[in-house]
Amino acid sequence: METTEAPAAHVFDAAIALAAQGKDSYTGHTHPAYGNMVGPFGGAIGATLLNGIMQHPARLGEPLSLTVHYAAPIADGAFTVHARALRTNRSTQHWLVELMQADQVAAFATAVTAIRRDTWSATDAVFPAVPPADSVAPAAPIARAAWTGCYEMRFIEGGPDAPAGEHPSQTQLWVRDQPPRPLDFLSLSAICDIFFPRIFVRRPKWAPIGTVALTTYFHADAAQLGAQGGAPVLGVARGLHFGKGFFDQSAEVWSADGVMLAASHQVVYFKE
Amino acid sequence: METTEAPAAHVFDAAIALAAQGKDSYTGHTHPAYGNMVGPFGGAIGATLLNGIMQHPARLGEPLSLTVHYAAPIADGAFTVHARALRTNRSTQHWLVELMQADQVAAFATAVTAIRRDTWSATDAVFPAVPPADSVAPAAPIARAAWTGCYEMRFIEGGPDAPAGEHPSQTQLWVRDQPPRPLDFLSLSAICDIFFPRIFVRRPKWAPIGTVALTTYFHADAAQLGAQGGAPVLGVARGLHFGKGFFDQSAEVWSADGVMLAASHQVVYFKE
Repeated sequence: METTEAPAAHVFDAAIALAAQGKDSYTGHTHPAYGNMVGPFGGAIGATLLNGIMQHPARLGEPLSLTVHYAAPIADGAFTVHARALRTNRSTQHWLVELMQADQVAAFATAVTAIRRDTWSATDAVFPAVPPADSVAPAAPIARAAWTGCYEMRFIEGGPDAPAGEHPSQTQLWVRDQPPRPLDFLSLSAICDIFFPRIFVRRPKWAPIGTVALTTYFHADAAQLGAQGGAPVLGVARGLHFGKGFFDQSAEVWSADGVMLAASHQVVYFKE
Repeated sequence: METTEAPAAHVFDAAIALAAQGKDSYTGHTHPAYGNMVGPFGGAIGATLLNGIMQHPARLGEPLSLTVHYAAPIADGAFTVHARALRTNRSTQHWLVELMQADQVAAFATAVTAIRRDTWSATDAVFPAVPPADSVAPAAPIARAAWTGCYEMRFIEGGPDAPAGEHPSQTQLWVRDQPPRPLDFLSLSAICDIFFPRIFVRRPKWAPIGTVALTTYFHADAAQLGAQGGAPVLGVARGLHFGKGFFDQSAEVWSADGVMLAASHQVVYFKE
């Protein structure tokens, strides 16, 4: 007998859910499935902030850029989110979204949403020669970082415990939500933050680290993302410079057929 | 006879000057020397926003990251700037700075300032093989973009009117303030925005363009920047993806002896 029930919401949607609470405000709650060693997975927090824009009645267009500031440790539990457009133009809109805990800003994001138009296009970044996803074994989740159980990660280069290679801080992997979930701006924004800290790939020594700020540029529209369904996407990340307590990382996320879906950059604190 | 006068302020300092006007607020004015084809050069606006942090009495540490949103066209003339720390931690501080014209937000920035410490360091980005600055001829300024007269630019690859080469959207150039000015976070933030729009390097066709948002990560401290004096720095920029009315650019700025001073990324609107 066929059931007529709606499919259960994906755990990712539960993790980034916001309940409207008056003009420009929402309430939300961290989710244990996306817990990290301390507090929540940053990618889920960034997606939650973006969700405050996606759900906003005044939103114009689709995400183009997202900058997330991880301003302070986020405690497991409830928070409020305030989202407002600082400027609205004809085809672009600039946003500020703040996540509050204990009456203080714990994280915030700025974003641009935009109406995309068909134009000339070209990709100068290079889609690398990689084996197909189904030929690469998935890695086991890391028990002390619950969120890693929410992603299927198939490392081609620079995985956990990989020896340093020719590109010492580069990782290539196929990644998707676990269980698979149709790709959208929210899940793509989180996938842009799944790369393990470059310093652990670069240097075989544990150190306290934390992303300070992350910027993602979205290169696909909602239809292109939707066409990915739950297929794995290719993530490529590398470190640029490490020193004086901080390093930066640049990453690209590609569809299996070589469409650049997003470029993402972050700066990360480390304690030697 | 020796004069005892202080050296005249550099025109860059005049262009980004802010006068304190009560708590968290300043007034400023666009400067004709940094005019662009329409409105002011974005790099000068970004430096002005950063200056609202540099001058703020509550500032902790030095700039680590800066994200500038060019939210609307900026008119030549006066503006006000509001700068406030959204969160202050022990060694990092997160900022929001807004530039207002006609009671509307015309541009804004978020930034992180941080106390740097000596740690392990490494650079994985590659300093390219380039001829020294004094062996490359400076390019003539572009008359309809006044700000180009404020920089000495010596193009190695991908200059104005250069034929497309192996890296079709890549530019390499030696650049410094004109006249030379000792490098600091303010001038470096502006230098990160001197790259001509990648689409003009990539495609020999004029189009209206405008930077939407720009993020810079600073990898040097004040002492390292000061040690540069007024020497040329090497800028390398390339486009990643162009399409649906927007493209992104990633750039690095290096000292002549191969120290990575900054990485900078931006997303740009174009009209086909």
